[in-house]
Amino acid sequence: MNATIELLLNHRSIRSYLDKPLTEEQIHAIVQSAQAAATSSYVQAYTIIGITDQQVKDKLAELSGNQAYVAKNGHFFVFCLDLHRLELAAKLNGELTEKAEQTLGSTEMFMVGLIDTALAAQNAAVAAESIGLGICYIGGLRNELPAVAKLLQTPKRVIPLFGLSVGYPANLSDIKPRLPLLNVYHENSYIQNQEQLDQQLRDYDRDISSYYAERTNGARNDRWTESMSKLLQNPKRLFMKQFLEENKIPLD
Amino acid sequence: MNATIELLLNHRSIRSYLDKPLTEEQIHAIVQSAQAAATSSYVQAYTIIGITDQQVKDKLAELSGNQAYVAKNGHFFVFCLDLHRLELAAKLNGELTEKAEQTLGSTEMFMVGLIDTALAAQNAAVAAESIGLGICYIGGLRNELPAVAKLLQTPKRVIPLFGLSVGYPANLSDIKPRLPLLNVYHENSYIQNQEQLDQQLRDYDRDISSYYAERTNGARNDRWTESMSKLLQNPKRLFMKQFLEENKIPLD
Repeated sequence: MNATIELLLNHRSIRSYLDKPLTEEQIHAIVQSAQAAATSSYVQAYTIIGITDQQVKDKLAELSGNQAYVAKNGHFFVFCLDLHRLELAAKLNGELTEKAEQTLGSTEMFMVGLIDTALAAQNAAVAAESIGLGICYIGGLRNELPAVAKLLQTPKRVIPLFGLSVGYPANLSDIKPRLPLLNVYHENSYIQNQEQLDQQLRDYDRDISSYYAERTNGARNDRWTESMSKLLQNPKRLFMKQFLEENKIPLD
Repeated sequence: MNATIELLLNHRSIRSYLDKPLTEEQIHAIVQSAQAAATSSYVQAYTIIGITDQQVKDKLAELSGNQAYVAKNGHFFVFCLDLHRLELAAKLNGELTEKAEQTLGSTEMFMVGLIDTALAAQNAAVAAESIGLGICYIGGLRNELPAVAKLLQTPKRVIPLFGLSVGYPANLSDIKPRLPLLNVYHENSYIQNQEQLDQQLRDYDRDISSYYAERTNGARNDRWTESMSKLLQNPKRLFMKQFLEENKIPLD
């Protein structure tokens, strides 16, 4: 095991930061690292918005469900899927044709943009952690996505996907145990043995339940499948399809 | 700049590998690194299929548009978005309700799964590169996605998203220059000055054109916006929406 893999395995979300802003040099190193990630057909289909205006941070914190670490951190990035730039590229070449519009509105192109943006973001996260900073992804940014898009003035075909809080950790949280490797990693085909998959989840449930119980003096002992099942009972952000459509990503 | 950031900035796709398989220890370190990535609400919505059967690799290479490095590498991973496991979690708790089905079929949940899978994959890529291996993402895996899903026997709600070839590099490709940092990184809101964005793209076009010309003795001098515009003229994988629907991800 080398230092980089150790760094990756040592990840935990940090939700409390010292009051110390990142330097411009750090911010640029993080953004350049993001840009260095692989990109599908060179499309680089993302834009990163860094928030330096405290009022904007406060508003984003409110829109994300009042998460303090969205307002208080060393720096806050918003990762946006960006198909607007590709539209510009076509325009600059006088080729914003019906075919180009069809590509830009397709489910496939949306997937490409999502994947591109997430690969870039994870490089940013790793870069930040490598210089001793903590990070937390903020999916809650999508809670009130239309308001977030308005606040950040994103044009059509640009979708803010998630935030990334970065800063000097005020305290370290625990590393949360992941699913058993053999539940996540299959060989040559998806495991067809349902009993085996169920058993792995039951074992994991037991581990997670003890993990919570130990850390809360028994106050909490949720099993993983229980938490997941609960999560599924509350469909979230059901406006998404319509929001994408209004932003010229009809998912055709 | 530290060693990890240097590693990230040094990324290039490797498309030719020595005939030397990865060890099980290396494979497990890569998968564990993938699992250590952040995951939205702990869902861990992915499964990774490692291909050891050469016949399966050959078939995947064929289905991905005859890319040799899908068949010839040190190891080949397929990263799948997996909402099937969450369905199991609900079932194990006797709660595969209408609400749960609604969550599983939503555009939002699809985005969560895509992002989770991509974050994990990028950690895998970084881990592999940190031990001196080269990698190449294979989006071409989606060219014939229904056939790939059949070959890998993925159940409903599991979508193979892309492959990741890994191996000892046979030769190093060049690092491809990215968009200007200030075109990708905005502050506080999306840049509203269209002339500025256009100018950045024109500057980048010039750089990329020289980049290609230098490396091909002038045989190639594509500008970036030109390549992007060309790409958009050929809508790809338009079956995607229907394929997702057939796999119980209707994107509601």
